[in-house]
Amino acid sequence: MNLEFTPIGTIHSPHRQAEGTPIQPRWAAGVEGTVEVLPQFAAGLRDLEGFERIWLLFWCDRAREAKLEVTPFRDNQTRGVFATRAPSRPNPIGLSCVRLLGIEGAILRISDVDMLDGTPLLDIKPYLPDCDVFPAERTGWYANARERIQADGRFAEDSEIVY
Amino acid sequence: MNLEFTPIGTIHSPHRQAEGTPIQPRWAAGVEGTVEVLPQFAAGLRDLEGFERIWLLFWCDRAREAKLEVTPFRDNQTRGVFATRAPSRPNPIGLSCVRLLGIEGAILRISDVDMLDGTPLLDIKPYLPDCDVFPAERTGWYANARERIQADGRFAEDSEIVY
Repeated sequence: MNLEFTPIGTIHSPHRQAEGTPIQPRWAAGVEGTVEVLPQFAAGLRDLEGFERIWLLFWCDRAREAKLEVTPFRDNQTRGVFATRAPSRPNPIGLSCVRLLGIEGAILRISDVDMLDGTPLLDIKPYLPDCDVFPAERTGWYANARERIQADGRFAEDSEIVY
Repeated sequence: MNLEFTPIGTIHSPHRQAEGTPIQPRWAAGVEGTVEVLPQFAAGLRDLEGFERIWLLFWCDRAREAKLEVTPFRDNQTRGVFATRAPSRPNPIGLSCVRLLGIEGAILRISDVDMLDGTPLLDIKPYLPDCDVFPAERTGWYANARERIQADGRFAEDSEIVY
């Protein structure tokens, strides 16, 4: 069974290549970008401006082919891919909570941007602390994660790095 | 441009129809279900058991066709669909943070389940408070949301309800 999705827009960011890109919005604080929503979806943006933060779901279009075991950026041994946030995964959907600075027409100004420039956007959802914030004390291997905050090329399709 | 995704498994839950299903995991506390991951993806589950909570990304397969303006469950007027978590949306990808109770082989036991039984699974990611918890004081229309915690049929493809 194959499911078809279609981009609703494009994310623009200062990050041109995986290497050096923050691995999550938390480590991209203050890095600004824009989201360009396609005209045929712009009516769906009404009322969004009231929200301080939004989820962006996007297609990790330049991630190399999925492997089921990967070495995450913040570790030095392999882990099951579903226990990581690596972009190379069976359905390469990225999930990032960014700050919404403003909306002009179909252009969103955002901050805390950790996507590559030109990333196809799949969905926008409001960030609701009610629904999205949970205590979670057990975080598996991540509890001992390394301090790395920027990507290298290990998941980039055009990279020679092998992990 | 169309993107093709393929389910990596199926979510089993006690919810057989939209009407009466909790609208978010927060209001499904203690409701248990399972995730059955397809054998060819099971190797990706290694190391997941250490995490207390996980994100499930899933295909809202029984949501009716998307509209760009919808009346959310917790409101009584229309809003842009991207300012809501309604399942009927241009790319109907659902996002829920559930509690992981245990893993046996390729079966995950989960709690706080707000998906319909049989929902196709697209991705699993660990819930990382580091990356997923943000203060967000401004929550737009949702700040005055109604107290509804269960769905009705308004977004169900088989429903006669018109909003």
